[in-house]
Amino acid sequence: MHVDLVADLGEGFGAYRMGDDATLLDVVSSANVACGFHAGDPRLMEETVAACAARGIGVGAHPGFPDLVGFGRRAMDLTAREVRTDVLYQLGALGAFTTACGTRMRHVTPHGRLGNLAMSERPYAEAVVGAVAAYDPSLIMVTQDGVLAETARKAGLPVAILMLADRGYRDDGTLVPRREPGAVITDPGAVAARVVRAVTGGVVRTIGGRELPIACDTVLVHGDTPGAVGLARGIRDALREAGVDIAPLVGAP
Amino acid sequence: MHVDLVADLGEGFGAYRMGDDATLLDVVSSANVACGFHAGDPRLMEETVAACAARGIGVGAHPGFPDLVGFGRRAMDLTAREVRTDVLYQLGALGAFTTACGTRMRHVTPHGRLGNLAMSERPYAEAVVGAVAAYDPSLIMVTQDGVLAETARKAGLPVAILMLADRGYRDDGTLVPRREPGAVITDPGAVAARVVRAVTGGVVRTIGGRELPIACDTVLVHGDTPGAVGLARGIRDALREAGVDIAPLVGAP
Amino acid sequence: MHVDLVADLGEGFGAYRMGDDATLLDVVSSANVACGFHAGDPRLMEETVAACAARGIGVGAHPGFPDLVGFGRRAMDLTAREVRTDVLYQLGALGAFTTACGTRMRHVTPHGRLGNLAMSERPYAEAVVGAVAAYDPSLIMVTQDGVLAETARKAGLPVAILMLADRGYRDDGTLVPRREPGAVITDPGAVAARVVRAVTGGVVRTIGGRELPIACDTVLVHGDTPGAVGLARGIRDALREAGVDIAPLVGAP
Amino acid sequence: MHVDLVADLGEGFGAYRMGDDATLLDVVSSANVACGFHAGDPRLMEETVAACAARGIGVGAHPGFPDLVGFGRRAMDLTAREVRTDVLYQLGALGAFTTACGTRMRHVTPHGRLGNLAMSERPYAEAVVGAVAAYDPSLIMVTQDGVLAETARKAGLPVAILMLADRGYRDDGTLVPRREPGAVITDPGAVAARVVRAVTGGVVRTIGGRELPIACDTVLVHGDTPGAVGLARGIRDALREAGVDIAPLVGAP
Repeated sequence: MHVDLVADLGEGFGAYRMGDDATLLDVVSSANVACGFHAGDPRLMEETVAACAARGIGVGAHPGFPDLVGFGRRAMDLTAREVRTDVLYQLGALGAFTTACGTRMRHVTPHGRLGNLAMSERPYAEAVVGAVAAYDPSLIMVTQDGVLAETARKAGLPVAILMLADRGYRDDGTLVPRREPGAVITDPGAVAARVVRAVTGGVVRTIGGRELPIACDTVLVHGDTPGAVGLARGIRDALREAGVDIAPLVGAP
Repeated sequence: MHVDLVADLGEGFGAYRMGDDATLLDVVSSANVACGFHAGDPRLMEETVAACAARGIGVGAHPGFPDLVGFGRRAMDLTAREVRTDVLYQLGALGAFTTACGTRMRHVTPHGRLGNLAMSERPYAEAVVGAVAAYDPSLIMVTQDGVLAETARKAGLPVAILMLADRGYRDDGTLVPRREPGAVITDPGAVAARVVRAVTGGVVRTIGGRELPIACDTVLVHGDTPGAVGLARGIRDALREAGVDIAPLVGAP
Repeated sequence: MHVDLVADLGEGFGAYRMGDDATLLDVVSSANVACGFHAGDPRLMEETVAACAARGIGVGAHPGFPDLVGFGRRAMDLTAREVRTDVLYQLGALGAFTTACGTRMRHVTPHGRLGNLAMSERPYAEAVVGAVAAYDPSLIMVTQDGVLAETARKAGLPVAILMLADRGYRDDGTLVPRREPGAVITDPGAVAARVVRAVTGGVVRTIGGRELPIACDTVLVHGDTPGAVGLARGIRDALREAGVDIAPLVGAP
Repeated sequence: MHVDLVADLGEGFGAYRMGDDATLLDVVSSANVACGFHAGDPRLMEETVAACAARGIGVGAHPGFPDLVGFGRRAMDLTAREVRTDVLYQLGALGAFTTACGTRMRHVTPHGRLGNLAMSERPYAEAVVGAVAAYDPSLIMVTQDGVLAETARKAGLPVAILMLADRGYRDDGTLVPRREPGAVITDPGAVAARVVRAVTGGVVRTIGGRELPIACDTVLVHGDTPGAVGLARGIRDALREAGVDIAPLVGAP
């Protein structure tokens, strides 16, 4: 039994740093690497990809909206063509560093508000999927279940379902919104137990008390909040104790 | 007998346009495509690459300094690592569009001040060559003779020598600086005759009156000055009359 | 009898130009000057303000969304604080050039999608008005009738109502949307006659055939479409023939 | 007896933070506030100016090169017009926030490489001084002794001489370059003693052992290196013990 642990890495810019990349690199098996639009710059992209290559960590693209000052978290009303070409540009940019570092890109997961929109609105999903399919149809689309996963499957892309380790789920499988109680689970033991149960048992207890069947190919751990790295280590250790291997995603043969 | 005609294309940004791309696409056999740092955006890059692919025009990368407001024409004192990673990023970004358009990148020629510095200063030349070699060592480095050509050859990259159609040459083979008389040749007939002579005879008459042996694999025509497109057409027509085929660059077999 | 003619000026960026500023400077009595977010750079801002100062043209700020590649035309979901501080920043930046050129800023009109949102959505209107009131409450808010005009008046800002010379109006006083027939009036004579009638008679004929009473302190003429400058000249000449002076806006005494 | 303590504040951008602004605000009497080119964004600028206004801290502009990814530390070969207009733009932008916060701008000190170039190269110094004089000739130019101070005095601007608390000086009054031994003094006690001696005695011991007369209107303390805030507090406490008041700069009456 195995699962992937993934974190957003390389989200600094120039002289700025974000999160504790050095520590997360010792915990995760995959990385979502920022591509220069919402965060990331060519030096940091190379450094992050090189660090992943050296440790056997799977490299994924984390394309975002062209909004550095907003960290890609603000909705932008873009045309499908704008989204598709922006994603293509970012995929290629990251691809130059995987090539230069002698490794390869394995997955794609859109960042922030682009990710939210792609998971819920078909035109955004189709634009993201169109870019990935045109660039490299062997790339694994990493996302929660929803419109993006569905659109990717239809286009023949491999899909891996993402579990958010520290977020509450509703009975319908969507996340409890951040402004509602139960949105974020902060107890490290509870988070770790939850992940182990999802990975080994395929269920998560919803905020409504339901035992929800859940797919979980990869688990997202955070690095940019205090205590987040400890949470990530706790998840890793609990998975190992439960006999679960932590390993990068593997695409279709 | 054949030669390549090349122009800088896709140098607009967002709502802005630069030069008469539509007309130049009917004249040239290769295009230097801006990659988003000094000019160019994802839509324009895709549009330009698609137009080249449809016409059999050879696509080249035209990476520049990260200085949109200065159009990449202002010197920046960057480290070798900064130059190398900035160029890698831009190569990859353009590569996504050649892939998506079902074509391939054939050459690289650095833009503006980055190009000037790479032709004369070894650290810049090595950084540019390092990026190209790491990304795709089959890419042809297009440049005037000088440090960049030499560095590229040493690294095993194919090199094509660029002639500037409307610029005066000095006895040592360098260009007459723009602030000196004779820097730019404006008579269309003279420019066309000069190019034909360089391509068919391998010589150019310098400002000092010397018959200078000159290599000429590709001829740069401009599009962003009034009359430039007429100049480009004149060169094309004169070459054809002289029995010279106009064809994209071909790399080492 | 007098009216103001206004155009968007200084909408280039770096090496790029947009519209025929030189000609419009001979037609208009006021200018909306881009402030560097959707268009405009410090050189062009100074040049435009200096040209206005030399001709007695009223200088206004034309703040936009922070989206150069989208020319400020794409909706962004910003907080009120983001809009207010972005507008403050742009007002101040332009103000440095009016100060350095020995003139003063007279009006403000938000650009593109920011303008559309401010005219219809109260939080955007309040954020724009809040910035203007905090920076200089003597600045005239230039806008079509709507939420922005109303919010500005409540905050005690002087307001000037803008007529769009070449756009069709609906019976309720709003513009015919661009995708519908009658949205744009292209006949120069019709446009000029319409403006004269609005200015001297205070009415405009709607697409539904109604004679709509219309306020018209200032008339927007365009410069970035072919034929636009001719249209602007036609309006100017027709107004003069009708005995209407063309003069900058004057704020409350 | 009094002296000003100044730090670079507001050097974050969007989601990024740089240095420990909250703590430094309790130590310094003046702030160099980033203006959005090398660092800083409208939210952070307003927040920083508001915090300064609430504490009676003197607000200064810290304009830099237009190079966010390089944090304004990389040399750019700009024309005098480019430097002057870039500085004007940034002064105005910051000025909007001092106006909105009901305070005023007191001083200007160019950041990073722009600062270095302005202190040593006359065209850069003249461009910076030209911008300040055109915007507000009562602004105090804060700089080490050198070409910028001299140029500012000639233009009639008030000048305050800056001492770098933790840097070694050479016999000629210039700083020991960072790559040489003795460039940075790390012992907190030594740094504090040095500052007290410069302020109360007007001398500093050079790396060559000379007692160098030194002007010291303001002392720069850093915030973006580990231990820097402790250093700043040590300087403040030592000055107070020596009976020196810490107070913002005051311009010419």
